[in-house]
Amino acid sequence: MHRITPSSPDGPILRDIDSLAKDLGLAPGDYEPYGRLKAKLVHGLASKFTDRPLGKYIGVTAVNPTPLGEGKTVTTIGLAMALSQLGHTTVGTLREPSLAPVFGIKGGGAGGGNCTLEPQADINLHFTGDMHAVTSATNLLASIIDNHVARRKTPEINPKTITWRRSLDLCDKGLAHIISGLDQPPQAPLRETGFDLTAASEVMAILALASDPRDLRTRLGRIVVGMTYDRQPVTVEQLGCAGAMAALLIDALRPNLVQSCESTPFLVHAGPFGNIAHGNSSIIADQIALRLADYVVTESGFGADCGAEKFFDIKCRASGLQPAAEVLVCTARALKLQSGQFDVHPGKPLPPALLEENLEALRAGAVNLQAHLDIIQQYHLPTVVAINAFPDDSERELQEIQKIALDQGATAAVITRAFSEGSEGSFALAEAVVQAAELPNQFEYLYPLEMPIAEKIETIATRIYGAASVEFEPLARRRISEYEQLGYGNLPICIAKTQYSLSHDPHLLGRPTGFTFPVRDLRLSAGAGFLYALSGEIRTMPGLPSDPAALRIDIDDAGKIIGLH
Amino acid sequence: MHRITPSSPDGPILRDIDSLAKDLGLAPGDYEPYGRLKAKLVHGLASKFTDRPLGKYIGVTAVNPTPLGEGKTVTTIGLAMALSQLGHTTVGTLREPSLAPVFGIKGGGAGGGNCTLEPQADINLHFTGDMHAVTSATNLLASIIDNHVARRKTPEINPKTITWRRSLDLCDKGLAHIISGLDQPPQAPLRETGFDLTAASEVMAILALASDPRDLRTRLGRIVVGMTYDRQPVTVEQLGCAGAMAALLIDALRPNLVQSCESTPFLVHAGPFGNIAHGNSSIIADQIALRLADYVVTESGFGADCGAEKFFDIKCRASGLQPAAEVLVCTARALKLQSGQFDVHPGKPLPPALLEENLEALRAGAVNLQAHLDIIQQYHLPTVVAINAFPDDSERELQEIQKIALDQGATAAVITRAFSEGSEGSFALAEAVVQAAELPNQFEYLYPLEMPIAEKIETIATRIYGAASVEFEPLARRRISEYEQLGYGNLPICIAKTQYSLSHDPHLLGRPTGFTFPVRDLRLSAGAGFLYALSGEIRTMPGLPSDPAALRIDIDDAGKIIGLH
Repeated sequence: MHRITPSSPDGPILRDIDSLAKDLGLAPGDYEPYGRLKAKLVHGLASKFTDRPLGKYIGVTAVNPTPLGEGKTVTTIGLAMALSQLGHTTVGTLREPSLAPVFGIKGGGAGGGNCTLEPQADINLHFTGDMHAVTSATNLLASIIDNHVARRKTPEINPKTITWRRSLDLCDKGLAHIISGLDQPPQAPLRETGFDLTAASEVMAILALASDPRDLRTRLGRIVVGMTYDRQPVTVEQLGCAGAMAALLIDALRPNLVQSCESTPFLVHAGPFGNIAHGNSSIIADQIALRLADYVVTESGFGADCGAEKFFDIKCRASGLQPAAEVLVCTARALKLQSGQFDVHPGKPLPPALLEENLEALRAGAVNLQAHLDIIQQYHLPTVVAINAFPDDSERELQEIQKIALDQGATAAVITRAFSEGSEGSFALAEAVVQAAELPNQFEYLYPLEMPIAEKIETIATRIYGAASVEFEPLARRRISEYEQLGYGNLPICIAKTQYSLSHDPHLLGRPTGFTFPVRDLRLSAGAGFLYALSGEIRTMPGLPSDPAALRIDIDDAGKIIGLH
Repeated sequence: MHRITPSSPDGPILRDIDSLAKDLGLAPGDYEPYGRLKAKLVHGLASKFTDRPLGKYIGVTAVNPTPLGEGKTVTTIGLAMALSQLGHTTVGTLREPSLAPVFGIKGGGAGGGNCTLEPQADINLHFTGDMHAVTSATNLLASIIDNHVARRKTPEINPKTITWRRSLDLCDKGLAHIISGLDQPPQAPLRETGFDLTAASEVMAILALASDPRDLRTRLGRIVVGMTYDRQPVTVEQLGCAGAMAALLIDALRPNLVQSCESTPFLVHAGPFGNIAHGNSSIIADQIALRLADYVVTESGFGADCGAEKFFDIKCRASGLQPAAEVLVCTARALKLQSGQFDVHPGKPLPPALLEENLEALRAGAVNLQAHLDIIQQYHLPTVVAINAFPDDSERELQEIQKIALDQGATAAVITRAFSEGSEGSFALAEAVVQAAELPNQFEYLYPLEMPIAEKIETIATRIYGAASVEFEPLARRRISEYEQLGYGNLPICIAKTQYSLSHDPHLLGRPTGFTFPVRDLRLSAGAGFLYALSGEIRTMPGLPSDPAALRIDIDDAGKIIGLH
């Protein structure tokens, strides 16, 4: 074991990537090192190992979070490390962090405390370039579309119907809505358009859902960018640009192997957000991990209403893989916040009162935990509640959460101290997960694909979010009718909504009932293979806070990055 | 020596990166492998090797090219390989290709035929992510500026004075001129702005000109993004964002080690274009290469009027390094084109008549070669003319070029067949270069920095381009006066102009005289350390041709990239 210090002189002792790969059963030809602590796997690995049995597939989700997050990534890392320490071969599979929160509000996405992915700064910044590849492919297509329209190539696209938007991996609100093509002489149509976060782009979803290079290429060709003047869909295949996009993405389709601070292997691959996208790491990484390990622990974005619903109904449906158990992360502070008794703003510190013992507020907000347990139970999976305890948390609050969780049907409810204690603080969780994963389960999807689009959306809104009904705005109604007529009615649904509430409204806390869930727009993601519904005020290009995290990041004279968390 | 096949089953035999690095005198701690054929050097290498003597520094430039290019990169690679074969330790230093020409007109920038850089597809696409890092840093700053303005932070920026533009590494004409900030509620100012090619961004120039991490950080902080309401410059340091930009760029500042198809080491690092930017690879790479090798061969973009002038007056001035000799590449077809007797369009094949023997047209167009020789002689450097011969070229034409070149004062004029024969086709050139580099030279810059801005521009336009005079448009005049008042008058000049003519007008071929050179705008690149003058119709965001190269690129079922040249 080599001592490699990726980010600080007293950083963790890490294994070089060759030794990490070897212990996973990988041959030197199965991966390419990127630096001494990262590697990209080669294509075709999942089919190389088909003689091996599939490991147990463990999902990790959470209650509705505070703006600071509830330590779901930390819990996932701690769980994988504890399973490893208990003697189970384990691989964690996580999403790649986006630069947008790194420079905006939330900071990095590579864990924290004694549960980090290493090399942390690399993973939080450019990593192996996958996010940039997605951005490039998305924007290459936009440039080809404008060039196609300006030169009136066939099939002729009505520029007013172009739904393809550009992307950037930054919170750049100025680009959310723009008028493009003002240059003279015009070589591009003058039109209203905008940029989404790369993490919300269809190309990112395709990267996460594709099973191999051929499937990637096919999905890219299937993307619909707009309509002809007689309302026929125009695909990327027709524009001739799917091949170039695939060339840009082909290395990004190879999962990235790294390790945790305790040297547990992780595949960190693809990065769709859980609110404005389908919120799950790649299928390819999970397929490989499940052949290499006894346990694969994978996290989906935000709460069970966001990433976990999409994990079950989009990702598992696309891969055919079946989860063995689900972990539901919560914190005392998140549940107290859900009581509605505290004033919390994204980008600001949490109010001190939220951090004091308050059993009454806890019980009031715990309806949110109950709702999330009910969500997972609709998929018939054993659920372990992981109560992520902070050092100053009240023991009585933690015990109260355990009681409420068990009363609501959790298979187990354990306290974890992964941030401060690493695997040591996660043994109880690991043991509970091993037991839960042994239980039989009758996993099933929430809705069948043949259901009409509106009904699928209503099913998610009423049975997962707890809405009384759904209100489709006229634009959404038109799209539903159009997409069903064009034969895209049988796709699963990916809903973009706030992560702060079970509903569409971040101010409706706890377990709201009786609300009407509004659907503003519906976009066709024919390549990713889902219909993308936008609810309420959710935005696919968020802004920066008043005091962006970027202003605290720097380098020292030796070039070491500082201030990046 | 390992046989590694990067792109085709019958590709070149390449050395693994560890063996390549070792033979260059690098220890394992001096670099990090990126895959098995690429490495990034660590910071601080130039100062590690200061006890070694500096090698001979050889520049490579060209006459005004045809739209297909004149094989300057191929000649550079062939020369480096031939010097190597002749027993001289040699390192080539080249710019990183941009995705824009790869998907647009010109194709890849990693050589061709028997003079390639490997792994070719990697280098032409994402490589080690440096271009993406530059794009990200440029756009992060734009988002911070808009956020700063929208929140009315101090110093308050007048949004109408914002000169900072975003960038993309794609030919996306629709983004050349946009209105941004239309989103409601407004979190960014509504304003006219646009995107430049990443290769034209000030951040790219900074990456190429910075000498170490501290210098990078200082230059980023020095960037001026706009003015306060009382016309005081606002810097990136004042916005607090130089550190985060440096963090994004810190790995990109480390040169990339690769090899040619004959295993000659190359440092491929930074990629400013020669027409719309200063057109030269990084100073850091050259500083290291000159300590590791007897000969360092480096190419600058387009003709001697573009990249070479900037090599001497911007890059060498910034580094203090002195070239020993210059190679001037020409082809028979480019010189015949310069006769003005042929009709050539970017994005279209060359007319067959241009490829037939025509000594009269050749002599008429050879005034262009003479002009370029005269340009280099103003810097008092020995010049070797490399006549890049195509298989079907007329021997009489090639001999005529030799004669004209020697008559015009070339130190030597040799025929090269690098594309078809690799180092074998470049031995005569290598021998001529070795002899030229032994000659004493009185290298000097074209103009002193203390000269007034307008006079510096006039000096370049009249003495290099052959203009009779310069016409400053009112905007340019205002900027000159403003920048001189603000204390930025003592910077060197980087002129953006067409590469197809010595003048500003791509239709003025041969050796135009008597023309007035128009200067439309002047931009301050305080971080890069130059004033950026835009002439005539030159655009910093070009468009795609009717039939973009992107439409011919694809992957096969195994994920291998095809159609990328």
